[in-house]
Amino acid sequence: MRAGTQRMQAAVWHGARDVRIAEVGVPTPRPGEVLVEVAYCGICGSDLHEYADGPHAIPVAEPHPGSGATAPLVLGHEFCGTVAALGAAVTGLAIGDRVAVEPNYRCGTCPRCRAGEYNICRHFGFAGLMGNGGMAEYAAIPAYMAHRLPEAVSLEQAALFEPASVALHALRRAGAPPETMAVVGLGPVGLLTVRLAAERKARRIIAVDVSPVRLERAAGLGATDLIDAGREEAAGERIRELTGGEGVDVAFEAVGSEISLGTCLAATRRGGRVVLVGLAPKASLDTFALVNNEQSIVASVGYRDTYPELIRLVAEQGLDLTPVVTSTIGLDALITHGFEALMDGPGNQVKILVDPAAHRREAPLLPSPADRTEILT
Amino acid sequence: MRAGTQRMQAAVWHGARDVRIAEVGVPTPRPGEVLVEVAYCGICGSDLHEYADGPHAIPVAEPHPGSGATAPLVLGHEFCGTVAALGAAVTGLAIGDRVAVEPNYRCGTCPRCRAGEYNICRHFGFAGLMGNGGMAEYAAIPAYMAHRLPEAVSLEQAALFEPASVALHALRRAGAPPETMAVVGLGPVGLLTVRLAAERKARRIIAVDVSPVRLERAAGLGATDLIDAGREEAAGERIRELTGGEGVDVAFEAVGSEISLGTCLAATRRGGRVVLVGLAPKASLDTFALVNNEQSIVASVGYRDTYPELIRLVAEQGLDLTPVVTSTIGLDALITHGFEALMDGPGNQVKILVDPAAHRREAPLLPSPADRTEILT
Ligand SMILES: [Zn+2]
Ligand SMILES: [Zn+2]
Repeated sequence: MRAGTQRMQAAVWHGARDVRIAEVGVPTPRPGEVLVEVAYCGICGSDLHEYADGPHAIPVAEPHPGSGATAPLVLGHEFCGTVAALGAAVTGLAIGDRVAVEPNYRCGTCPRCRAGEYNICRHFGFAGLMGNGGMAEYAAIPAYMAHRLPEAVSLEQAALFEPASVALHALRRAGAPPETMAVVGLGPVGLLTVRLAAERKARRIIAVDVSPVRLERAAGLGATDLIDAGREEAAGERIRELTGGEGVDVAFEAVGSEISLGTCLAATRRGGRVVLVGLAPKASLDTFALVNNEQSIVASVGYRDTYPELIRLVAEQGLDLTPVVTSTIGLDALITHGFEALMDGPGNQVKILVDPAAHRREAPLLPSPADRTEILT
Repeated sequence: MRAGTQRMQAAVWHGARDVRIAEVGVPTPRPGEVLVEVAYCGICGSDLHEYADGPHAIPVAEPHPGSGATAPLVLGHEFCGTVAALGAAVTGLAIGDRVAVEPNYRCGTCPRCRAGEYNICRHFGFAGLMGNGGMAEYAAIPAYMAHRLPEAVSLEQAALFEPASVALHALRRAGAPPETMAVVGLGPVGLLTVRLAAERKARRIIAVDVSPVRLERAAGLGATDLIDAGREEAAGERIRELTGGEGVDVAFEAVGSEISLGTCLAATRRGGRVVLVGLAPKASLDTFALVNNEQSIVASVGYRDTYPELIRLVAEQGLDLTPVVTSTIGLDALITHGFEALMDGPGNQVKILVDPAAHRREAPLLPSPADRTEILT
C-alpha cells in the first residue's frame, strides 16, 4: 500500500457542470475506517443531477453530520473494491478482502436506527454525495459500510449491489411477493427490479418504458410483457387488460413523474400497492378513487439489510446483475462517455461503470495540470 | 311473526331531501334470506349525504348487482335485531336469534372475494344504500350478513358494530399495532378508532378535531392528548412536538379533506403510515417528501372479518362502544332530530340511533296518509 503522500486520480465535484478529474492525495483511513482500492464505481442518476444542476444532496454550506464533509468532494456511491489499508480499531476485515460498499452514513442512535431502519436515519447520507465517494482510485470509508465478498461473488456483480439494493428494498416494500406486477420506468433500478422479481418467481412482470432498447433489455432480464409507453396511449389500461381487467398486485413507479404515478394507480388492482421508487416532485391524487379501491401508496427510499441477501443470491443462486451494464469507462472519460452519454436521451445507456484504475492499465496517466491538483481532506 | 300482508314503518329514500317515513309492506324473506326485526339502526354520514344531495351510492337507473334494487329504497345500514322469520335454505340461524347485521353485498366469485377481501368485491354494496336497509321495523337480508350474538353482547353494543368495524379495519390497515398514533377527525369512526386503539393499548393516542365537545368525548374513550385544530394553527407540528419531534407511527385521516391529509403527513414519522378512512375528493401530494420520509398512504374502505372480533371484545373484554351514542330517536323523528340535528354544525351529536319500534312502545303509530303508503319489493 502506498503511503499517505501518494497521489491518485479522482472525480471531484466543485459545482454544477464542474466535476474535475483531478490528482489528489490518497486518503489515510481514520480510526474505524478502511481504505478501499476501488475496482468499479457505477454512475447513478443522482450523480448526473449533481453534475447537471447541483448541488442537490451535496453539502456546500454546512458539513453533513454523517461525514463531516462539504464540497468539493469525490463523487460516486456505487462502488466496490479491495481493502488496501485498515484504520485503527477495525476488526473483522483484512487487507486484501474484496468488499462491496454499502455507502450509507447512519447515526446509530436515532429512533429509526434503533429500530433497524437506518435507511431513514435522521442523519442519513451517502458516501459519494454527502462525503467522499468511490469515483477515485481509493476511498476511505467507515468499516461498517464494507461487506466482505465470498469467492463466488465477482467485483463486477458487487459493483451493482447498490442499485440492486434499491430494487430489492422496493420489492420488500411491496409486502407479500406480488404474483403480478408492473415496473414503470426501466432505468437501472427498474431493470434490476424486473431481474429480482424474476428471481422471486413473479408470474407476470409487465415492463413499461418509452425506450425500445430498455424494453428489450427488460425482456432479457425476465419481463413477461412489454409496453412501449411512447406508443400506447394508456399504459395503465393496457396493464389492466393484460391482467384480465383486474390490475396488477403491485406497480413500481421508477420514473419519478406524476404521469407515471397515474399509470401505476390505474394499473393496480383493488387492494393493491403502488411502490414509489422515483422522486416525483409532487402529484395530484384522486384520493376518492384511492380509498374506494383501497389502494396503498408506499414510498421506498434507499435500502437496508440488502447486501447479505444480494451476496447470497449471487453466490448461491447464480443471480447475474451485469446485463444492466452498458459500458465500462475510465475516470478520464467520466464527463464525455459517462455523464454526457447518459444525458444524451434515454435508452442507449443503462448502467455505466467507472474503472478508476483503467488509465494505469490501458493508457498512460492523464496529464495533471496544476489547476487539477488539490488535496481532499 | 306477522304475515307478508302486514304493514310496517320505514324511512324510504326517494330523492335528495325526500326521505319519507312511510307505511310499507313487511318484506317476505326470499330463499337464503332472513327477516330481522330491527332493534336499532344508526345514522351514518353516508345516509346524511344521500339525504342532503343524493343520490351518491343509491342506484336510481340500473339495479345494483348485489341487491337487484333501485330507489326508492329503505335507508340504514348500521343495524341489528332479532330474527323474525327464515327464508328457504337458511341454516345456522333460528327465529329469536339476536343478530348484528354486516350489511355488505358481495359476489363471492371475483378475485377479491376469492382472496377473502370481500370489502373490495367488484359488486360491493351496502344494504341500506344499494338495497333495502334497516331504518324500518323489519328488514329482509341475506343470511350471510347476520352474526348471531352471544348473551353477553347487548343489541345496544351491536348497533355500533358497523361503524366500529370501519374503525377496526382502519386499525388493521395500519399494520403492526402503533405505539403512537393520531386520529384526525372525531366523528363516530374517529372516536371508535380512539376507543379500539385504547383497547389495543396504544401508548399515545392523540385526538384532533375542531369540536371541543368531540375532543372531550375522545378523552373519555381513551385519547391521551387532545388538539383543538380550530385553535392550533399547525396540528401536525403540534403532534410532532408531543412525540419528541419524531412524529407518530400512524395517523388516521378520518375527516376526508386535503388539509387533514396534510396534517396527517406532517404528523407521521419517517417510515410511518397515514391511513385514509375519510373520503377526500382529491389531494395535492408532496411526493418528494413522501419518498424521502419513506411514508405510506394506505387507504381503508369498509371492513372485512371484523364482526367476530367485535363480538369477542364486547363479550370477553368488556368493550363498551355506547359512549359514542348521543341520542336514540324514533323513525318519525329521523328528519328533524336525526338528519337535521347532525347537519346543524358538527360536534354536539355524534352517533344517533333510530329505534324503529319506538312509536309502538311509546306513542301511537303515526298517521299514515295515502301518499305515504307504498309497497317495496
Ligand atoms: Zn440514525
Ligand atoms: Zn366479489
